[in-house]
Amino acid sequence: MKAYTQYLTFNTKEKYEFINITSEVGEALKKSGIKEGLCLVNAMHITASVFINDDEGGLHQDFIIWLEKLAPFGKDKYKHNLTGEDNGDAHLKRTIMGREVVVAITGGKLDFGPWEQIFYGEFDGQRKKRVLVKIIGE
Amino acid sequence: MKAYTQYLTFNTKEKYEFINITSEVGEALKKSGIKEGLCLVNAMHITASVFINDDEGGLHQDFIIWLEKLAPFGKDKYKHNLTGEDNGDAHLKRTIMGREVVVAITGGKLDFGPWEQIFYGEFDGQRKKRVLVKIIGE
Amino acid sequence: MKAYTQYLTFNTKEKYEFINITSEVGEALKKSGIKEGLCLVNAMHITASVFINDDEGGLHQDFIIWLEKLAPFGKDKYKHNLTGEDNGDAHLKRTIMGREVVVAITGGKLDFGPWEQIFYGEFDGQRKKRVLVKIIGE
Repeated sequence: MKAYTQYLTFNTKEKYEFINITSEVGEALKKSGIKEGLCLVNAMHITASVFINDDEGGLHQDFIIWLEKLAPFGKDKYKHNLTGEDNGDAHLKRTIMGREVVVAITGGKLDFGPWEQIFYGEFDGQRKKRVLVKIIGE
Repeated sequence: MKAYTQYLTFNTKEKYEFINITSEVGEALKKSGIKEGLCLVNAMHITASVFINDDEGGLHQDFIIWLEKLAPFGKDKYKHNLTGEDNGDAHLKRTIMGREVVVAITGGKLDFGPWEQIFYGEFDGQRKKRVLVKIIGE
Repeated sequence: MKAYTQYLTFNTKEKYEFINITSEVGEALKKSGIKEGLCLVNAMHITASVFINDDEGGLHQDFIIWLEKLAPFGKDKYKHNLTGEDNGDAHLKRTIMGREVVVAITGGKLDFGPWEQIFYGEFDGQRKKRVLVKIIGE
């Protein structure tokens, strides 16, 4: 069994931002030399997500509007913010979108359906954060 | 390390539908010959889910009603639908229910609690879609 | 490839409760002797979650208040409760928080960002329930 580890770093311009990281994960897979196995991709910070969906700008706006409805930003809306933070909403938003994805590796490729793309989802950005890519297999 | 890959195909009669796929995944596991490892089961389409919960019809109706409240269907409700689609809601519904599950394989079996069953969740059906089963281990 | 399996048992005092299980999972990892691989941690019951977030009490209260808004408790609110149960809401709450996490193992450690902690999330407690820890790697 082989294992390969890579850390990706992001520092978004915006507070909320979605970044397509499919090609970075594909590059990591190539470096790993693994042909059959599993690939974990996860946010290492708890106000960010990694998720799989469509690379369509309208949909991404829909996600942002929807998350704002389900878990609105607001300094005085969350007990977590009594610690001095203002990102209580971001912890909830990331919970909806998910921390991680696990992707099958088949024949040396990310084994994806026609529209699947991997995104980094930032909900409290404008500072350095990391994503972990871990691939195991043979 | 062994790896086994199988694709399941679904074409639901209804727009929304939940299908218990536990026995199909169990069959894939038998064919794999793997006794200890991990099994990934994921929707390959971005308006469908794979999730684990109870095989109880009332609960499934509760899920549908609840998802309709959280992310209602509506051609004019989502920017994604400006592309000509009408399935913006389905992308959000699938996000709540999840893309994938990872199941432990122990002693040649899906290592499940008493009520755990694997479901395919369709939110934009009546056309052909695939689910991936990937098992790695020994 | 090595595989290691451990079951953790919980019987919470409260109906809703979050328990930090990071050290239990770390102990399982030590016993496994695995240095590089993947660690699956999942609730074996369908009204409970395993999730990763911050160990901050205010945030945990925010989660509970938020989940109660998204999927309120109520004997007469869910078709599932026509079976005699009163935990329809708990099935939905667990869906938001997630069934499982997959964690990378790097250099014999849980490969975590600065604030990542693993929690057991109980939404229908005061009875015995199990969590599965499955680690594969080398």
